[in-house]
Amino acid sequence: METLLGDGQSGLVFIVSAPTGTGKTTLVRRLMNEFPSIIASISYTTRLPREEEKQGVDYHFISEQEFKKKIEEQDFLEYVQLYGTYYGTSTSWVEERLREGKHVVLVIDTQGTLSLKGKIEVPTIFIKPPSLEILKERLLKRETESLDIIEKRLAWVRKELEASKYYDYQLINDHLDIAYEVLRSIFIAECHKKRKS
Amino acid sequence: METLLGDGQSGLVFIVSAPTGTGKTTLVRRLMNEFPSIIASISYTTRLPREEEKQGVDYHFISEQEFKKKIEEQDFLEYVQLYGTYYGTSTSWVEERLREGKHVVLVIDTQGTLSLKGKIEVPTIFIKPPSLEILKERLLKRETESLDIIEKRLAWVRKELEASKYYDYQLINDHLDIAYEVLRSIFIAECHKKRKS
Repeated sequence: METLLGDGQSGLVFIVSAPTGTGKTTLVRRLMNEFPSIIASISYTTRLPREEEKQGVDYHFISEQEFKKKIEEQDFLEYVQLYGTYYGTSTSWVEERLREGKHVVLVIDTQGTLSLKGKIEVPTIFIKPPSLEILKERLLKRETESLDIIEKRLAWVRKELEASKYYDYQLINDHLDIAYEVLRSIFIAECHKKRKS
Repeated sequence: METLLGDGQSGLVFIVSAPTGTGKTTLVRRLMNEFPSIIASISYTTRLPREEEKQGVDYHFISEQEFKKKIEEQDFLEYVQLYGTYYGTSTSWVEERLREGKHVVLVIDTQGTLSLKGKIEVPTIFIKPPSLEILKERLLKRETESLDIIEKRLAWVRKELEASKYYDYQLINDHLDIAYEVLRSIFIAECHKKRKS
């Protein structure tokens, strides 16, 4: 039987990138709520958990030593070092999920995405903020960070936006409902795409 | 502002093919009702209008002499001859609509689609019937054609299905609402795809 996400036989990997404050967490969570067969990849990281974060749910929190061992074992599909912290996606974890018929979303940054170019053939989606000004306002409203850190983050965002041209799809999150419908449409469309076999 | 079909600046061409009786007319009409910026290309044909068909609405009905003149003038994006009748899509007509910001759907058969391969870069969508048996039942229910003609049509459908492997997207119309949602998702996704410029 035809379903919105295809025949359910084989899962796909999707890459979603978005600068901080663009609503990617909300959008991807909504996707997972609507489609139980879509799951977000749980990254490995050497960063310490924030208060609300849970081991194995938000991240697999591991030590730098353990992380480097996994690098040696070549178990990372991609990994990056950001502000001295490692983040990585485990190949074996993703492959296990695909075998279960799940679609796996990698929420990674442009550096991670570009490192995968040519290695695996997966749809890449970039979510843009309406503008840098609006993004700055959003970050200020959160009030969790100093202006100095926000300025550093915005400089990083500019770099991310520059790299967005390498993505297959681009959408702007200025209205959450529209952005969500575009995102889910991309997933549905890709599940009906003819793959080179 | 972000909309479901992109920035409204530039229209896209889409190709939709489906064997007879697969519901393509219903699906494309529904798409046009929901999105006023999507229109179906009106083909030129040398066939005589059926009772309910209107000149310039269902087809541009022209004589074989006029059709051949347009071939000479190279105004056909594609044209085919089927059972002695010509059908063709006018390049100038399509370009005019794209300049108006419309998305143009070409509802053409696999022969017409394959003749466009390499000439223009457009997403191609193939709608399949659930099975040949079910399609035969549907055609028999219409009761407009003899069993002999239906058998000939089914032989043609087999050829069409064989050619469906050259399409970018494939969907099965076993439930109209799901087929429609997949089809509209493909349109929305393609409008957010990064084009090689």
